[in-house]
Amino acid sequence: MSIFALTRSRPQDTERPFPSGPAFIRLRKFFRSPDPSSEFAHEPMNHNDFKYLWRIDSPADLKTLSLDELPRYCAELRQFIIEELAANSGHLGASLGAIELTVALHYVFDTPNDKLIWDVGHQAYAHKIITGRRDRFDSLRKLGGIGGFPRRDESPYDAFIGGHASVSISAALGMATASRMEGEKRDVVAIIGDGAMTGGLAFEGLNNAGVAKSDLLVILNDNRMAIDTNVGALKEYLLSITTSKHYNRFKTRVWNQFPPGSRIHNFLKKTSNAIKQGLLQQSNLFESFGFRYFGPVDGHDVKSLVKVLKDLKEIPGPKLLHALTVKGKGYEPAERNQALWHAPGHFNPETGEILSAGGSSVPSKFQDVFGETVVELARKDRRIVGVTPAMPSGCSLNLLMQAMPDRCFDVGIAEGHAVTFSAGLAAQGMIPFCNIYSTFMQRAYDNVIHDVAIQQLGVVLCLDRGGLVGEDGATHHGAFDIAYFGCIPGLTIASPMNETELRNLLYTASQYGKPFVIRYPRGRGPGAPWKGVPFETIPIGRGRKLRDGSEMALLTFGPTGIWAAAAIDQAEKQGRSIAHYDLRFAKPLDEELLREVGTRFQRVITVEDGVIRGGIGSAVQDFFTDNGFRTKVERLGIPDRFIEHGTPEELRHLCGYNTEGILRTIMAR
Amino acid sequence: MSIFALTRSRPQDTERPFPSGPAFIRLRKFFRSPDPSSEFAHEPMNHNDFKYLWRIDSPADLKTLSLDELPRYCAELRQFIIEELAANSGHLGASLGAIELTVALHYVFDTPNDKLIWDVGHQAYAHKIITGRRDRFDSLRKLGGIGGFPRRDESPYDAFIGGHASVSISAALGMATASRMEGEKRDVVAIIGDGAMTGGLAFEGLNNAGVAKSDLLVILNDNRMAIDTNVGALKEYLLSITTSKHYNRFKTRVWNQFPPGSRIHNFLKKTSNAIKQGLLQQSNLFESFGFRYFGPVDGHDVKSLVKVLKDLKEIPGPKLLHALTVKGKGYEPAERNQALWHAPGHFNPETGEILSAGGSSVPSKFQDVFGETVVELARKDRRIVGVTPAMPSGCSLNLLMQAMPDRCFDVGIAEGHAVTFSAGLAAQGMIPFCNIYSTFMQRAYDNVIHDVAIQQLGVVLCLDRGGLVGEDGATHHGAFDIAYFGCIPGLTIASPMNETELRNLLYTASQYGKPFVIRYPRGRGPGAPWKGVPFETIPIGRGRKLRDGSEMALLTFGPTGIWAAAAIDQAEKQGRSIAHYDLRFAKPLDEELLREVGTRFQRVITVEDGVIRGGIGSAVQDFFTDNGFRTKVERLGIPDRFIEHGTPEELRHLCGYNTEGILRTIMAR
Repeated sequence: MSIFALTRSRPQDTERPFPSGPAFIRLRKFFRSPDPSSEFAHEPMNHNDFKYLWRIDSPADLKTLSLDELPRYCAELRQFIIEELAANSGHLGASLGAIELTVALHYVFDTPNDKLIWDVGHQAYAHKIITGRRDRFDSLRKLGGIGGFPRRDESPYDAFIGGHASVSISAALGMATASRMEGEKRDVVAIIGDGAMTGGLAFEGLNNAGVAKSDLLVILNDNRMAIDTNVGALKEYLLSITTSKHYNRFKTRVWNQFPPGSRIHNFLKKTSNAIKQGLLQQSNLFESFGFRYFGPVDGHDVKSLVKVLKDLKEIPGPKLLHALTVKGKGYEPAERNQALWHAPGHFNPETGEILSAGGSSVPSKFQDVFGETVVELARKDRRIVGVTPAMPSGCSLNLLMQAMPDRCFDVGIAEGHAVTFSAGLAAQGMIPFCNIYSTFMQRAYDNVIHDVAIQQLGVVLCLDRGGLVGEDGATHHGAFDIAYFGCIPGLTIASPMNETELRNLLYTASQYGKPFVIRYPRGRGPGAPWKGVPFETIPIGRGRKLRDGSEMALLTFGPTGIWAAAAIDQAEKQGRSIAHYDLRFAKPLDEELLREVGTRFQRVITVEDGVIRGGIGSAVQDFFTDNGFRTKVERLGIPDRFIEHGTPEELRHLCGYNTEGILRTIMAR
Repeated sequence: MSIFALTRSRPQDTERPFPSGPAFIRLRKFFRSPDPSSEFAHEPMNHNDFKYLWRIDSPADLKTLSLDELPRYCAELRQFIIEELAANSGHLGASLGAIELTVALHYVFDTPNDKLIWDVGHQAYAHKIITGRRDRFDSLRKLGGIGGFPRRDESPYDAFIGGHASVSISAALGMATASRMEGEKRDVVAIIGDGAMTGGLAFEGLNNAGVAKSDLLVILNDNRMAIDTNVGALKEYLLSITTSKHYNRFKTRVWNQFPPGSRIHNFLKKTSNAIKQGLLQQSNLFESFGFRYFGPVDGHDVKSLVKVLKDLKEIPGPKLLHALTVKGKGYEPAERNQALWHAPGHFNPETGEILSAGGSSVPSKFQDVFGETVVELARKDRRIVGVTPAMPSGCSLNLLMQAMPDRCFDVGIAEGHAVTFSAGLAAQGMIPFCNIYSTFMQRAYDNVIHDVAIQQLGVVLCLDRGGLVGEDGATHHGAFDIAYFGCIPGLTIASPMNETELRNLLYTASQYGKPFVIRYPRGRGPGAPWKGVPFETIPIGRGRKLRDGSEMALLTFGPTGIWAAAAIDQAEKQGRSIAHYDLRFAKPLDEELLREVGTRFQRVITVEDGVIRGGIGSAVQDFFTDNGFRTKVERLGIPDRFIEHGTPEELRHLCGYNTEGILRTIMAR
C-alpha cells in the first residue's frame, strides 16, 4: 500500500481549485515522490535530521527563519505530529490540515500580544508546538499533561478556550473590542473551520462583528469536514465560491494586484461600506454580514499565506480570509478516510494501521449498540428517524444513514437546531432519535425546555458520552446533564447499566410518545448479550434490585452499577452485606423502591457518573426527608470542580467513585 | 395631540420603499383622514358596526370574504386588538404589525392542515382571534385564560410553541420533513421577525433547510425591531436590499411578471439550482443558503399579499418572502415609540396615555436599580461595559447606552453570543455586565459553562426576571436558573432581597474578577433606599441573620425574604418564634451560617423563587446530611411541573410560597 503519499484529489469531493497544495511529507521506505520538482517536497527525516524543529521554541524563534525555510519547517512539524500522535493518540486530521496556517500566523503576527483563537482547538497542535510545548507534546491529553485544546491557564499564547465549536468569532470580537477601547494596538484572529461555521453562534458573531468598528480577522479554514463530512447549504455555498469561474476571476484579480500601494489595495482601503461594495460589484454571504471577503486561497502554501496575511494586517475592520485546506493533509491514510482519522487513537505511522485497543472479543461500544438498535427499530416502525448534529460516526447513526439514508439527518454542528428540528418532526407524528453528546447537549438546553419538554413532544434525546469522558478533559465531560435535565418538568431520564438495557430503553422510548432522555457513557459496555435479543419494555420510572443485603444499600444509575457491583463483591469477601439497587431512572424516581430502601436501611450510598450537586443523590435524600425517613445518603459522583483530562478510570479514581473509591466508602463505617 | 393617525414615515428609520402601507385605522374623535381617497381608509367603528369581525369564527369563515372585503376585516381586527389590549394589556406592537400577514395566510392556506409557525408568538393575536378565540380574547394572559403565545394544547391551529425567538425555521423544517416522509400534502410556513432572524438558531435552520428537499416557506416579517430597534449587520443588509435600486428593479420585474404561466414563473420553476441562480444573476444572503428569495413586498397590503402567497404556494423547495411591516401599525402612538409600545400594559386608547400601575410613590423596578447603578459604576471604572441581547429597555441598560453609548453593546437576539462576547471582553481585562432574562439565559447555558466558568473570567451575569414572571407564562418563567447554574463549578450566585442589596451586589461583582451571577426578579422592589447610598462590599458567600427565633429557621434567597418576613410577622402574632436568615448566596453556601442553623434548629424551611428540584433547599439539606446535622429541611418553591400564566402573586399562591403559603407551612406543625 502506498501511504504517506500526497493525494492529489480527494475521492469524495467535487474538484476544487486547490484540492491539495504543495506541502506534504513521506516517511521512510514508503517515500515515492509524486512531484520531485516541487520545492516543497521533502524526504522523510530522522528526528536528528530536523533542521528547524528542535531549535524553535517560540514564535520569536520562528521569525528568525526566512520565508523560503518555512515549507521545510512545516514538513518537520507534520512529521513530528504524525509520529507523536501515532504513539499517544489525539486529533490528527484537523491539526495536519492547519500546519501551514499556523506557521504563517505566528510568522506574521506578534503573538502573544496579537491573539489567535482556534475554533475548534484540535487544529492547534502545531500552535502548541511552536509556542514552547514541543517537549511536553508527548504528555498531550494525559493526566497532568498538556490539554488537547487551547487553555488560557496553560500558555499565554492560548488566548481563549477551544473545546466546543463556533465560539471564536464572538470571543475574538470581545477581545478586539476591549483592545480598541483600551487603546491597545493588537490584531485578533479567529481561525474557524467550515464545520464550526455552521453553528448558529458563529452567525451571531458575524452579525455583531459586521457592524462593529473593531479590527478582526476571521480565517475560514475550509476543509469541507466537521468530524464527518460537513453538510448543509453553507457547504454548498462555499463549494460554489471555490469552483465558480466568476469568483476565481475575482480572486485572481484581487490577489495579483493586492500588494500595498497597488490600485486594488487602495481601492479596498478607501471603500468603507463593504455592504455597498458587495451589492454593487460582488455579493457574497460574508459581505452580506459586513465582512470583507478575501479568497479563496491555498491553505497549504505557507509562503503565499505569509504574504496574504501581511497584506490583510493593513486592512481595517472585519474581514474574512477563506483558506482551502485538506483535513489530514500530508498523511495519505488520513486524507483518504478523513472521518476515521479525525482522532484515530494509536496507529502505526508506517503502515497506516489503526491499532485497536482490544482484541476481537472486546464488548461492543455503547454507541454501536445504539446505532444498530436504532436501525432495527426503524425497520419495524417507519416513523422512526435519526437526527445528529455532525456526529454520525461518533454516535454510530452512520449505520442508519447507510441503511436508510432518507431517514437519518445530519444537520451540521447545530445542536439547538437538531433538537428543535426533532421537535418539529415529533409534532407531526415522527419518532426522532436525536443523538447528541452530553457535553454538547448544553448547547441545546433551551430547545429541550421550550420546544420539547413544555410541548411534551415524543423526542428521544440520546446523550452519548454521559459522565467523565477522559482525555478530552474539562470542556468535554458529560458531567452536568443529570442536574440540568433533572430540574425540567416532564422529562423522563434513564440510563442503562449494560448493552441489553440500552437496547430495551431505546425500544421503550420509541413507544413512549413523550420526551425521553437516555444517557449512556463513552466507550464499551460490560459485555452483556444484546444482538438479536428480543426487546422488552422497561416500566417507566422503575428501578430494580440487583442484590440483597442487610447493612446498607447502594443505589446506582447506569454504568456506575458495574463499578459498584465489583466493589460490593470485594466488600462481601470482607464479610459485609450490601444491597444493590439500579435506579435506572433519574426521573421519575422509583418511589416504591425508595420506600423499601428507606424502610430497611439507615445508610445509603448513591453513585452517579455526574455532578453531585443537583444530582440523583440529592433527589434521593430529598425523597427520604420529605417522606419521613431518617435514612442518610452518602453521595458519590463528580465534586464541585472542573475535572481535567486523563483516562476515565484515572479521573473516576480522583473523584472517588471507581470501584476502589466505592469500596473505600463502604468500608469507612 | 394627533393620535391614532397613520404615520407615513418612522422617525428613526432610513426611508424604505413601503414605510407605511395603506392599512390603518383611526378611532373616534381623533379621526382625521390622511388619505381619504385610499380604499383601505376606515372610520372608527362601533363594535356593533363591525361588518365581519363577529361572524368570523374560523379560517373557513374568513374564506367566505371576497378579496376586496379583507382590508375592512383587517381594520376591524386592528381596532378590536387595540381596544382589548388597552383594557387587558399584552404585546401590542408586534400583533398590530402582523394583521395583514395573518389574514392573508389564513385566507390562502388551508389551516390547520397547513401549518403556521409564529416566531415569536406575540405576532399571533390576530391568528388567535381568527381561529376561534375571539370571544376568549379578554382572558389573554390571565390565570385560566388563553396564553400570550401559540400553544399546541390550546388550539389545533397553534402548530408550534412560540415563546422564545428563532425556533420557527427549525420546527417548520421538521414538520415539513415529516409531512414529506408521510406523503401528506401540507404547506408549512414559518413567520419570523427580523429580530428573531438574528438568533443563531435561525441560521442553523436556514443552513439545514437550504439543502433539504422539503417545501418550506419562510416569511421574514421585517419591521426593523426586536423589542428595541433591531441591530447588527443583518439589519443593515435588509435595509440595503429594500433601498437598493438594483433590488427594487429585480423585485418589480419579478412581481409584475409573476403570475403562473408567465415567463418568469416558468423560469423560476425550471431553475432547480438556486445557488447557481443566485451566483449568476442575483446573489443574496438567503440564496446563499439555498433559499429562493422573493421581495420585498408591502406587508400591509393584504390584497397583494394574498396574490403573492397564492403564487408562492406553487413553487417547490425552500423559499423566503421578505415582507416589510411597521411595528404598532395603524396606532400612531405605537408606531411612534415602538419599544415603549412593545407591551405597554394598560393604556387609554383614545389619548394614547399608558396607565402606570402605581402612583409616583411606588418603589423602583429592580431593572432600574440595575440600570442606574451600572451607569454609576461605569463612571468610576472605565473597564465596566454593558452587554445585552436585544433587551436594552427591558433590562434598563438603555440608561448606560444613553450615558455612554460606546460602552454598551446591544448584540441582537443572540444570548449565546452575548455571553461569549462578554467572555472575550473579560479575557482582555474589561468588566462586562451581561444582562439576560433568566428564561433566555437557558440559551447561553453552554457559553456560561465553556467560555465563562471553565476559564474563570470576570463576567457579571445579571439575570433579570428570575423566578415566576407572571403573564408570559410557562415559556418565560425564570424557574430553572438556580438549579442549572448551581451545578456549575466556579460560579458565584447571589440574589438581592431589596434594592440596596442589588446595588451592593453589583458593586461587589464589579470588583470580584471571577464569574458572578446576580439574579433578581421582574418588577418592583420592596422600596429600600438606594439612590446615592454609598456602596458596600458584600462578603462572597455570606448570608445574614435578619431575625432571631427559637422554634425553627426560615432560610430565604433574594426576594422570597420579603414574603417570608411578612409570614413570620403574622406567625409571631400567633405566638410563634421563627428565626429568619437571608442566604443571599445560592453558591457558595454560607457554611458558617448553616452550621449555626443546623446546631440550633431541628426544623428549617427554605423558600426560593425557583424549582425545588436541584434548588437551594436541596443543597441546604445535603449540607446538613453531609455534616451530621439531623435538621430536616422543608423546601418551598416551584414544584416539578410547568407553571402557566397569571399574575406573579396568583402563581406563587398556587405554588404555595407567597406569604400565605409560607405562613401555612410554618403553622402546619
